[in-house]
Amino acid sequence: MRATLLYGAGDVRVEDVPDASISLPTDALVRVTRSCICGSDLWPYKSKPAGADGQRMGHEFIGVVENVGAEVTTVKPGDVVLAPFVYSDGRCDFCAEGLHTSCRNGGFWGVGDVDGGQGEAVRVPQADGTLVVLPVGEDDALMPSLLTLSDVMGTGHHAAVAAGVRPGSTVVVVGDGAVGLCGVIAAKRLGAEQIVIMGRHEVRTSLARELGATDVVAERGRAGTAKVLELTGGDGAHAVLECVGMADSLQTAIRVTRAGGTVGRVGVPQSGDIPASQLMFAKNVSVAGGMAPVRAYVEELLPDVLSGAIQPGRVFDRTIGIEDVPAGYAAMDGREAIKVLIEP
Amino acid sequence: MRATLLYGAGDVRVEDVPDASISLPTDALVRVTRSCICGSDLWPYKSKPAGADGQRMGHEFIGVVENVGAEVTTVKPGDVVLAPFVYSDGRCDFCAEGLHTSCRNGGFWGVGDVDGGQGEAVRVPQADGTLVVLPVGEDDALMPSLLTLSDVMGTGHHAAVAAGVRPGSTVVVVGDGAVGLCGVIAAKRLGAEQIVIMGRHEVRTSLARELGATDVVAERGRAGTAKVLELTGGDGAHAVLECVGMADSLQTAIRVTRAGGTVGRVGVPQSGDIPASQLMFAKNVSVAGGMAPVRAYVEELLPDVLSGAIQPGRVFDRTIGIEDVPAGYAAMDGREAIKVLIEP
Repeated sequence: MRATLLYGAGDVRVEDVPDASISLPTDALVRVTRSCICGSDLWPYKSKPAGADGQRMGHEFIGVVENVGAEVTTVKPGDVVLAPFVYSDGRCDFCAEGLHTSCRNGGFWGVGDVDGGQGEAVRVPQADGTLVVLPVGEDDALMPSLLTLSDVMGTGHHAAVAAGVRPGSTVVVVGDGAVGLCGVIAAKRLGAEQIVIMGRHEVRTSLARELGATDVVAERGRAGTAKVLELTGGDGAHAVLECVGMADSLQTAIRVTRAGGTVGRVGVPQSGDIPASQLMFAKNVSVAGGMAPVRAYVEELLPDVLSGAIQPGRVFDRTIGIEDVPAGYAAMDGREAIKVLIEP
Repeated sequence: MRATLLYGAGDVRVEDVPDASISLPTDALVRVTRSCICGSDLWPYKSKPAGADGQRMGHEFIGVVENVGAEVTTVKPGDVVLAPFVYSDGRCDFCAEGLHTSCRNGGFWGVGDVDGGQGEAVRVPQADGTLVVLPVGEDDALMPSLLTLSDVMGTGHHAAVAAGVRPGSTVVVVGDGAVGLCGVIAAKRLGAEQIVIMGRHEVRTSLARELGATDVVAERGRAGTAKVLELTGGDGAHAVLECVGMADSLQTAIRVTRAGGTVGRVGVPQSGDIPASQLMFAKNVSVAGGMAPVRAYVEELLPDVLSGAIQPGRVFDRTIGIEDVPAGYAAMDGREAIKVLIEP
């Protein structure tokens, strides 16, 4: 089968790999019908040292079950299923707490002998805990929005939940990428009154306004902070969603948080440290969030996607076939595309 | 009157200063009957560059009201009163939210023309919002415990609240200073089941056991982390109280926090950064807390001090007069005393 591998910075290839197949009784074999490229895929795409071994890529997908292991009970061949960006058993204490990213039997796509999502098929470990059956056909018009529940919409929602967004909140979203845009959707859905997005790419910030942002701040650093403070009565926002992951963006997030407020961070951290510790201390600002347990949020978000109440699929602005994946990475890295959908 | 001034590292002096007096109609004049030296006083005591101007010291005190300004309504001459470590108006939105440390009209003792607490008297700005009348005489036997409500006990409580301690919690307290010891008291008071204190000073950790700690870990760094994980079923604790403020102690705190858990930090940060950002992200560990709004906690903690249910005054192991304050600093800095009480 065909699948995506990353060999080094800028070097992503689609190649023949061994066909996915069931190996454990808890596995399912899923033929991938939709997958996509994540902003987080761009970090290794920018920085991975060149090497002989390719790394299997992709962690967001929807597909059709082709086969299941003997112990699988919740999905069957023919089911259209959604996979979150980590697999999880759904039974351990962490899963019970809604922290599926810390599942005692969970793991990541593309690691070890586990397939990546940017390919034609995937062996899904812990199928019962991982997969969610979707009540639609494999080519339903809602597919782009449904696919976002595998990562980006759940991640934006996690940022909003971690930041404590509630009805009437003032919210700042740092970052206008697909996660930031989903953060806007999540904040609006949870009842935020004012939603300021910080970003300077007009196509994206215009879309943010359509999705619920009330204000756009294009400035960065000190100037951006000053503008947000001006928009929030001088105090900053109770809830700030950090959707980038750079030390600078985290610093901005902390600076625009109102005393006593919380930064909900979901941007994959590119620095070992969180800056502005002393400012956080003085203001009693918390930093919460992390890798989003999106499996925990599917049941809450799915009805709103099915009803059309939220349309996170709007973050996709390009659709490609599997052979065009390298061009898809280049387009996202060059900011020509917000997020690229793959139809293998 | 006599008061304490810090001129540079290791150079603390008791000198004559102008008598405290009412200058605003919202002021009260308080004759200090008990004050103390704080672990946070040791940071400038260790590091302040030598200079011509002395800095007034002390931010924890109890005293007797001698006079009040025309607008003061809640305290009157003769009242025995407690002052939290920041003054606050008690009326602004931040005070209403319980975040008195961010009061719009608040400030710190010893800054500008405001007296420090380590002296014979203090002009108290925002007297109505700041002072709490104590229902005891000025030499009541409970004075040491009552005095801790001005900072150290409220700070330990803030760490526990920020870390989310609840009945049945597993808690780690990083640091065996007076704040850490009060953190143990606070965690026990909030119903924690297991309380591990990390510290290597036997006098202090023995006291911690008497105050409610169930386990003591003397090791630091990687070895300390391993020991705590071993004591907590391999997962770490839901709630970790960081009561030191060094980058290393914060790193340890993050490492011993269970996935999904929270570090409640009250140690004054000595580094501009919070370490282990990527570990926090992977585990969804939050860092909350900061400068404790102890004024917000007096009403909750005072009854337990008056009843003897908690005895935070046990952190004081030395009592001195005002002229001995320099020796008191040296004793705390040399770890000969946990916390020093001053009877001016």
